[in-house]
Order: sequence, then structure tokens, then C-alpha cells
Amino acid sequence: MISLSTALFGINPTRKEQKEKAQKRMDSLAIPKGSLGVMTELAVKLAAISESMTPSFDKKEIFVMAGDHGVVAEGVSAFSKEVTQEMVGNFMRGGAGVNAFSKISDAKVTVVDMGIDADLSNLYDEKVFLNRKVAMGTKNMLHEPAMTREEAKSAIEIGINRVYDAVNGRGTNLIATGDMGIGNTTSSTAILAAISGLPAETITGRGTGLNQEGVEKKASIIRTILSRRRFSPNDSLGILSKVGGYEIAGICGLVLGAAYCKIPVVVDGYISTAGAMLAYNINPAVMDYMIFAHVSNEQAHIKMLEEMEATPLLHLDMRLGEGTGAALALPLVDAATMMLKEMLTFEEAKVTPGNN
Amino acid sequence: MISLSTALFGINPTRKEQKEKAQKRMDSLAIPKGSLGVMTELAVKLAAISESMTPSFDKKEIFVMAGDHGVVAEGVSAFSKEVTQEMVGNFMRGGAGVNAFSKISDAKVTVVDMGIDADLSNLYDEKVFLNRKVAMGTKNMLHEPAMTREEAKSAIEIGINRVYDAVNGRGTNLIATGDMGIGNTTSSTAILAAISGLPAETITGRGTGLNQEGVEKKASIIRTILSRRRFSPNDSLGILSKVGGYEIAGICGLVLGAAYCKIPVVVDGYISTAGAMLAYNINPAVMDYMIFAHVSNEQAHIKMLEEMEATPLLHLDMRLGEGTGAALALPLVDAATMMLKEMLTFEEAKVTPGNN
Repeated sequence: MISLSTALFGINPTRKEQKEKAQKRMDSLAIPKGSLGVMTELAVKLAAISESMTPSFDKKEIFVMAGDHGVVAEGVSAFSKEVTQEMVGNFMRGGAGVNAFSKISDAKVTVVDMGIDADLSNLYDEKVFLNRKVAMGTKNMLHEPAMTREEAKSAIEIGINRVYDAVNGRGTNLIATGDMGIGNTTSSTAILAAISGLPAETITGRGTGLNQEGVEKKASIIRTILSRRRFSPNDSLGILSKVGGYEIAGICGLVLGAAYCKIPVVVDGYISTAGAMLAYNINPAVMDYMIFAHVSNEQAHIKMLEEMEATPLLHLDMRLGEGTGAALALPLVDAATMMLKEMLTFEEAKVTPGNN
Repeated sequence: MISLSTALFGINPTRKEQKEKAQKRMDSLAIPKGSLGVMTELAVKLAAISESMTPSFDKKEIFVMAGDHGVVAEGVSAFSKEVTQEMVGNFMRGGAGVNAFSKISDAKVTVVDMGIDADLSNLYDEKVFLNRKVAMGTKNMLHEPAMTREEAKSAIEIGINRVYDAVNGRGTNLIATGDMGIGNTTSSTAILAAISGLPAETITGRGTGLNQEGVEKKASIIRTILSRRRFSPNDSLGILSKVGGYEIAGICGLVLGAAYCKIPVVVDGYISTAGAMLAYNINPAVMDYMIFAHVSNEQAHIKMLEEMEATPLLHLDMRLGEGTGAALALPLVDAATMMLKEMLTFEEAKVTPGNN
């Protein structure tokens, strides 16, 4: 078991020499320089993470972290709390979006109960649905902190160790993040506010589909929550304990775990990016390992990405979560590895370079 | 052999009933309504084209149409004319971008010599590189029409029949377009100007990488060409004969052929979209069969898409052509078919719907 402090001690940026070597090869391919756009940056990143010019990410695993939120009692979501556990049932049936989309890149889907407020003992299965419940959902953060600092740390360590076990136990060489938790856009928005200082009114969105009145009520609740607690923008454990979710802490751990294990982590949408921001806050070196799958329709997602100067791969106007955006980006990772492995340079392909 | 008029007679819009049926199922999936964004539209389109709620596009084929351009003599490209034939060599070696990216969805790559200005008889192979040369490149359109009306029609029919043969000969059930032809952004820009009336200065871009001076010179040449010919915006054959390219006419034919054969056609970037506009001009019903893969970095590509009110799937800042953008979009087609086939509705998944 890897502790948070062990992981932090072991995370390093990727090597500059490897990045330069990959960039040089990408710049000598028999194409107009830069004409493969963001795919080139992705290829260079993958070469740097893997320390290989011919990497392969053939064992992909999507972790869907699930947890409930006490603040749902305040009416912040268009869906009821039971939907979290019901959707876990759908994941197990293979009928959810993330199941469907995982097929296009043959990725394994692993669901982790980080804190669902229900007894799901009849569903656990160490291969596909793990019981790592920290608590029966968070406390209602309008009235008290969502969790203790110790619980936040435990949840992060669960994430770290899911990656460590996957890499060492079954050769997983790339992970993607996903989430399930009714109420978690409220938590993610509060996290963004705590880190960025942006006012709740400008960053509160529709979540699963609130109308304008619902969005205003949600923003007002978030504003009240923010006014009742004090945040240190760099204290991720503090932010998690006050306004976090167990699944978001778990995602933060997945990012740290991927960086510790030196494998790429494909970050899904709004909720996952909230977890990624917290990991980035703890150690900015994780940026070298993160691939941002998409920018979602949830309005403040783009602001989270801007906070980290991150470029998302896809713009498909989605807002589902579960890891669906990440799953759709996985073939682009394969395409970028093919750029490294199969494309020829001007010299190798006997093509005359341009005069630019 | 299918003639242009036979194809036109056989092209129909997809059926409204099938679209509505697919839309209804998508709207009842156990997700917040609309939360899969443009993937939902894609799924509905695929169901409508295939007239099936469980379509499969397991035999994908990318056609890379290649041809030379007489106008290259005016210095409109950063690359020399020989690069067209040299890149065909690279396609045959499997070292080009389209080869690499075709692997992620197991698509077949077929290159068609539509009008390369070189003797390539030692390279032809009916399985992967077809000799359908209409002429040894277009004429220099600054001084005379690029081709005759008859040549334009022949080139379109070659495109139509490539699809017809693929569908009937080897069961191809989805095609994608690609291009290779030094100078073809000049031709595509002139086509856009002829159709839209937009002035050359506002739509001329960098192509394979011209500097600002080069772009201005290219725009000035296009302006001169436009001033020397008269265009009827709806006469695609006329536009092709005056400022077209054989590969662009071939791509126009691919789109018509796909609509005739009732299979989806994934349209690549700037050059392919020019061909698609010409097909759309001939028969707007082709829109129901077209999937626009990406918006490229070539500045006027977005204007072409806007002319047809088309929504591109990817925004990856690419500008390579070859079919690379289309190849990257193919997994999204697979993902959309999985939405139709594998995702469960609220009722099927036993998930409580939201109050919205």
C-alpha cells in the first residue's frame, strides 16, 4: 500500500531530453511542420511519460469513482440521490455510456464505491466493482464539513492504490478517470471557487439539467457554503474536507497514482478535472502525466482547464461524466502512438521538404 | 458502372420515421437528456442512413484521391509538385499520417490516382493504388480552365464508382475521404469563392505553410483567376472545370456515391469539404449521409462548414489532409453505434428519471 507521502515523494516531471527527442522526430516527419496540431503535443507527451519512442498503451483501464453527497438534501440536483446506486447497477449491466464507449478502445471499466450511501454488498466483485467505501456519503456541506481531513487523505490513498495495483497486478499501462455521484457538480464548483476565487454565480452550471431557477438556487447554496468556511487555495486536503466528495478525492488519488507509476492519465470532464486540480495543487508535476479528454458543456469546465493552462482534446458538447469523455479520447492516444511508431520522416520516406 | 445521372436519380434523403425512432430512443437513455451532445446527433444520423437501430460499420475504407495542379507553376505552395507523387510512395510504404491513423479503427486505405502528373505504372495495384488518371494534372487555371466539363464529369463518376465497387465488391459499409495534391488549397479556395461569393483575401490561407507574403501572393493569384472566369454558383461541373482539381472532383463523386449506396461518408478537411460542397450543390440530399470529421487550421475551412450549416466532430488544429482528420473521427462513429446498440433506457436500466 502506497501512502500519500510516499507517492508525493516519488512523483517527478518527465525528462526534458526525452521530450526534445520526440519533438525533434515529430518535426522531421514528412508533413508540413506542425500540421498535425495538438496530436503532435500528445505524441511528445506520451513519449516523455513512457520514456520510449515506440510506446504502447494496450492495457487501458477506466476507473469510475462513485460517491454520494449530503448536500443533495438541499435540492441542488435534478436527479435524486438514489440514482448514484442505480447507475452503478447500470454499469454492472454494461448499459451505461461509459460501458458503451469503453468498447471502442477495448478499455477495462472498474467501478469503485468510494462512498455510496447504500448497502451494495450483494454487488461487490473485486474484478469490476470494488468496495472501498470511506463513509455512507459526505455530510451536508451547507451545515458542516463534507468529511474529515483523515477521510480525505484515505480517499486519495484509495485512488493512488487502485492505480498501483492495476499497474503491478495486471499490467495496466494507461488509466482514465470517471465519476458517478448525484450532487457532484455542486462539490466541484465549490472546489473551483476555493482554488480560483471565482464567485459562485459565474461558475455554477446546470449539472444534470437544472433550469435557470434551479441554477440560481444552486449558486446561492454554494455561495452560502463558501461564506461559512475559510479556504487556503493550496490546501487540497482542507478543500476536500470542507466541500469535497469521496469520488473526487479518489480521482485526485488516481492522478497522483498515475504520475507515481509513470503512466498517462486521461482526465474526463468537470468532476474529474476538479479532482485533477486538487492533485495539481498538491504537486504540479502531475501535469506531465495528464491528458485532458474534452471540454464539457458544463459552463465552468473551461475555467478549470484555463486555471491549469490545459488544452482539451475533444469539444463534443457533452456533460455526462462517468468517464464517457475520457473513453472517447482513448483512440486519439492510440493515434498519437502510431505517429511515433509508424510515420516516416522526409528522409526515410524520400519526400522533398518544403521551403518553409 | 454508375453514371452521374443514374446516381443523381438514385439519391434520396434518409427517412424521417427512422430518424424520429432513433431520436426517441436516444432521448429515453438513462442519462440527462442531451448530455451526450453531438454524439447523439451522430447516432441518430447513423441509424437513419443504415435504416437500422443496431447498425455496424465494420468495413471502413478511406479513399485518398490524388492529383496535380497546373497552378503550382505560379508558386502558390510551399512544396514542389513532385511531392504529390512522392507522398503516394509514402502511402504505399505505410509511413504517412493516414496510414498511421487508419490503424485505430482498422480502416482500409485505398489511394486513387485521379490525375498525378507522373508515370506511376510501376506502383499501381488494384488492391491499394488504383490507376484512374483522367489527365497528367490540371491545366494552369491562371491562364486557362483547369479541365474540360467532360473531364470533370468523368472524375466525379470515378469517385461514384469507387464507392459502388467497394460496397458491392467487398462489403464496405462506411467510407471516408482524403486527398493528396500539392496546390489543392488554392483550388479549394477558388471553389469556395465561386460558391459563396466570399472575396479571395478573406479566405486564402497558409496551405502547407506559406508565410504572410506567400499567402498574399496566393490570394492575389486566386483573385485574378476569379476575375477571369464567370461562375454560376450552382453549376458544380462548371466550377470544377474552371478552378477544380481531379482529386476534388473525385471526392465530390465519393460523396455522391456514398449517398447513392446509402452508406455514411466521413468528410476530411478543407479539400474534402470543397468536394463535399460541390456534391451538396448538385444534390442537397447528400447532407444526410455526410459526417464532418473535423475543422482544420486552414482558416476558411470553418466558412465552408458554415455554408452547409455543418457541425464538425473534432477540433484538433490539424491541417494535413490525406484523410487524417477523417481517420481520427472513425472511432466516434463506432462509439455512436454503441450508443444505439448497448446503452439502456431509464426503464431498461431501472434508473429513476430526473425532474427535468
